[in-house]
Amino acid sequence: MTFDLAGYSIERRRWVEEALEHFIPPASSEPHSLHQSVRYSLFCGGKRLRPLLTIAGAEIVGGNPQHVLPLACAVECIHTFSLIHDDLPAIDNDDLRRGHLTNHKVYGEAIAILSGDALLALSFELIGKCSLNVPADRVIRVLQMIAHATGTNGMVGGQVVDIESEGKDDLDLETVKWIHGRKTGALLTASLIGGAILAGANGEQEQALTVYGENIGLAFQITDDLLDIYGDAAKLGKPVGSDLKNDKATYPKVLGLETSQRLANEAHDTGVAALSLFGDKAEPLKSLAKYIIGREQ
Amino acid sequence: MTFDLAGYSIERRRWVEEALEHFIPPASSEPHSLHQSVRYSLFCGGKRLRPLLTIAGAEIVGGNPQHVLPLACAVECIHTFSLIHDDLPAIDNDDLRRGHLTNHKVYGEAIAILSGDALLALSFELIGKCSLNVPADRVIRVLQMIAHATGTNGMVGGQVVDIESEGKDDLDLETVKWIHGRKTGALLTASLIGGAILAGANGEQEQALTVYGENIGLAFQITDDLLDIYGDAAKLGKPVGSDLKNDKATYPKVLGLETSQRLANEAHDTGVAALSLFGDKAEPLKSLAKYIIGREQ
Repeated sequence: MTFDLAGYSIERRRWVEEALEHFIPPASSEPHSLHQSVRYSLFCGGKRLRPLLTIAGAEIVGGNPQHVLPLACAVECIHTFSLIHDDLPAIDNDDLRRGHLTNHKVYGEAIAILSGDALLALSFELIGKCSLNVPADRVIRVLQMIAHATGTNGMVGGQVVDIESEGKDDLDLETVKWIHGRKTGALLTASLIGGAILAGANGEQEQALTVYGENIGLAFQITDDLLDIYGDAAKLGKPVGSDLKNDKATYPKVLGLETSQRLANEAHDTGVAALSLFGDKAEPLKSLAKYIIGREQ
Repeated sequence: MTFDLAGYSIERRRWVEEALEHFIPPASSEPHSLHQSVRYSLFCGGKRLRPLLTIAGAEIVGGNPQHVLPLACAVECIHTFSLIHDDLPAIDNDDLRRGHLTNHKVYGEAIAILSGDALLALSFELIGKCSLNVPADRVIRVLQMIAHATGTNGMVGGQVVDIESEGKDDLDLETVKWIHGRKTGALLTASLIGGAILAGANGEQEQALTVYGENIGLAFQITDDLLDIYGDAAKLGKPVGSDLKNDKATYPKVLGLETSQRLANEAHDTGVAALSLFGDKAEPLKSLAKYIIGREQ
């Protein structure tokens, strides 16, 4: 019997939506503009991939998924903060995201910058809330891991080198891996491992999930790069070809199309193989891996 | 005998500088531009008032000041993040800060935005490091308090309403208090209480320090507003009169000069009176309060 990823995801996305609705200040509370802007970007049709990984990380080690929902919301807030700031005129200057106007096109640059800031601060407040159901020392470990994956050693550092690599002709595979391992891979992996640590994963489980997370992060990014070439703008909700236009550091740029696709498949296989110690409990993460390299958007 | 605030501060500032030097990535590490930019703004002659409050908060309840240094560095990073983002063209559009060019004038807007983001993420990683010497449940409480004081209920929310209040003629005292209580007061108070909580403050001590912190935050902001009118641009390191020019929400605007000064003095007295239960141990905070309303910069 094939695992029903759609059914699994729909239920868990509903938990995440309800938890976000609960944790994010209502648009009616002061300052209205800030809360409207935060909600605009947060409830804008995201796939909730990172929260799904957090929940799956807890479940695969036998934990209670409800206990990791504040972390699941936190990683989605961090992801959304990074999208809002990356889209700013001074950075990627994008007008569309998921088929909608980007935050600063609707609320202006000042509110967009401050909304990202507010989401990042809120993320760490949410991580603290995990201590209601989880021993405080585990929460502290996850806090440090998520903060590390967000800052100069993670997403923000990766974004800086990504910007600085635009238009460079002498990029090698190592640099592209460095950039995307930090810009995308670090938070994906931390979302998954964070859920597992909160749920009491042992060292062997954590190690296996790290191998899975890093490889799936790689497969995810290569697929993103390929979709920017092959994808359907309507389904993606943003124009295709923008990496080429901006001469970004992508896998196809340094490896070509065919080798990139092969590397994505290999990363998928390596990631899935690392899950063998979990037996049947690995089905959700195996299906997610398949979805990640096969997705159309 | 008068308390020697200068001697007290010099020693503690040295601890903070050494700890920051230790915790902040070197400018030689990748990405260089990001780390150079972070260090430019962080080591740019700040008074380290928030870290001093954290250390004083630990000491007044008999704690080891060395154990709260990661928090002391974290609150300085949060303060610096807010300065970098507030100075951006889309927000306050300032060219000078502490007598130097603002971050984006040196490193460009993209790096300035990302440097602020990196500093905010790093702050929370640093708070996690307090768990080396302090029980994890105390660290979690402080994490949530600092995150709350930073986000939509604190600094960021206050900044949004401050921007939206520019040029308004019908401002009242309550709105000005709302803005500055969040924009400035929340982090000042959280810096102090955070140090005290990490050091094991009891409920009564925490309550007294909260009264001190909120009143001193108020006195600090009124003094800032008055310095923008009376101050010496050379000593302040920035032009005076910018609040008036931008028609900002200030205490002098809604209360006039004389009543503003009286309110600052009253807040000082209320704050200092709350420290009575600490006896002689209150001397550093009493001196800091006096410095705050008397300072020239």
